[in-house]
Amino acid sequence: MGISAGDFQRLQQRLNRRGPRDESGGTGAAGVGTGSGPAPKYHRLLGIDPSLRGTGFGVIEIVGGDWRMRTAGTLRCPASWPRTRCLAAIATGIRDVLREHTPECCAVEGLFFAQNLRTALTMGEARGAALAVVAEAGLPVFELAPRQVKQAMVGFGGAQKLAVAKMVQRRLSLDAVPEADAADALALALAFAQTAHRGPSAD
Amino acid sequence: MGISAGDFQRLQQRLNRRGPRDESGGTGAAGVGTGSGPAPKYHRLLGIDPSLRGTGFGVIEIVGGDWRMRTAGTLRCPASWPRTRCLAAIATGIRDVLREHTPECCAVEGLFFAQNLRTALTMGEARGAALAVVAEAGLPVFELAPRQVKQAMVGFGGAQKLAVAKMVQRRLSLDAVPEADAADALALALAFAQTAHRGPSAD
Repeated sequence: MGISAGDFQRLQQRLNRRGPRDESGGTGAAGVGTGSGPAPKYHRLLGIDPSLRGTGFGVIEIVGGDWRMRTAGTLRCPASWPRTRCLAAIATGIRDVLREHTPECCAVEGLFFAQNLRTALTMGEARGAALAVVAEAGLPVFELAPRQVKQAMVGFGGAQKLAVAKMVQRRLSLDAVPEADAADALALALAFAQTAHRGPSAD
Repeated sequence: MGISAGDFQRLQQRLNRRGPRDESGGTGAAGVGTGSGPAPKYHRLLGIDPSLRGTGFGVIEIVGGDWRMRTAGTLRCPASWPRTRCLAAIATGIRDVLREHTPECCAVEGLFFAQNLRTALTMGEARGAALAVVAEAGLPVFELAPRQVKQAMVGFGGAQKLAVAKMVQRRLSLDAVPEADAADALALALAFAQTAHRGPSAD
């Protein structure tokens, strides 16, 4: 049991792949794809940063040609809760966000860094709980690599999280820097919006 | 990035832990726990063996003092489907089973073998999609180690899958050996029933 050098390399390659990856298949609207055909327009986007104890979410929408925050937050699950209770809370929480804010598509991180097998399993479970709800609702899901998000937000793939969060604040004209998990989710939505729309001006 | 010897040891320890592990927390009925207090009675149990392309499920119930199969099958997702479409299909499929067959609790494999990080993430996603639905419906979820299932079914923790499937057929008086994924799910339900009830005769 272990991670071979080949596996690691393939993960890295996937993380560094350019362009968001449409994971939606036949579940909803046509995806952005890899550049062929006219770019679809989305006006309200959901970003999700799933994790068992603190799933960040954020919905942005175009208002007068600019991207603005509609909602954002963190679905917190105390350490005392068993895993399955957290999974239920994530599913219910994301379903509530979809019902209340009706985003048209969803952006999540693509294959991400996990320190070990156990972490990967747990992160996978949180992702599965969140993405099943999104896909059941018929939203296309797009995957962005962490480096793509940082690149799109601050022009540097190795940027620190706080730098990204500050850019989220600036881009969305927020009064304060959003807390970490929500900022990550908003950054995903903004980065996808930028990639898909080539900036709001292209809308 | 890699799996340390300590991680591996902890995984093994968890896999070898005795007794089913209640992961339900506050989501439903009281769990079996670790042996204190009277054993709760379940008369209709769901077993799930989640995987992205073929999630096995099986519901067993007590009929006249014996465990009988109520339903079993596999939620198949073709390789051509994107991951998120599979997750939606798993969630919808399990929800349908719950609605139609109203089991009282759910048994799944505990921490399982994954060859690498990528497999662990994907298996985690499938588990998350399935277990979120079960937990949202208020069912307690119990985890059994693969060795526990084999031990309970054929008295030998290293048993082959076919030997387990044949025992599933025998215990449930089925006309034929169930196909592999469904057999695994039925074996989980039967093994949990045996552990929780100390055999149907204790009911």
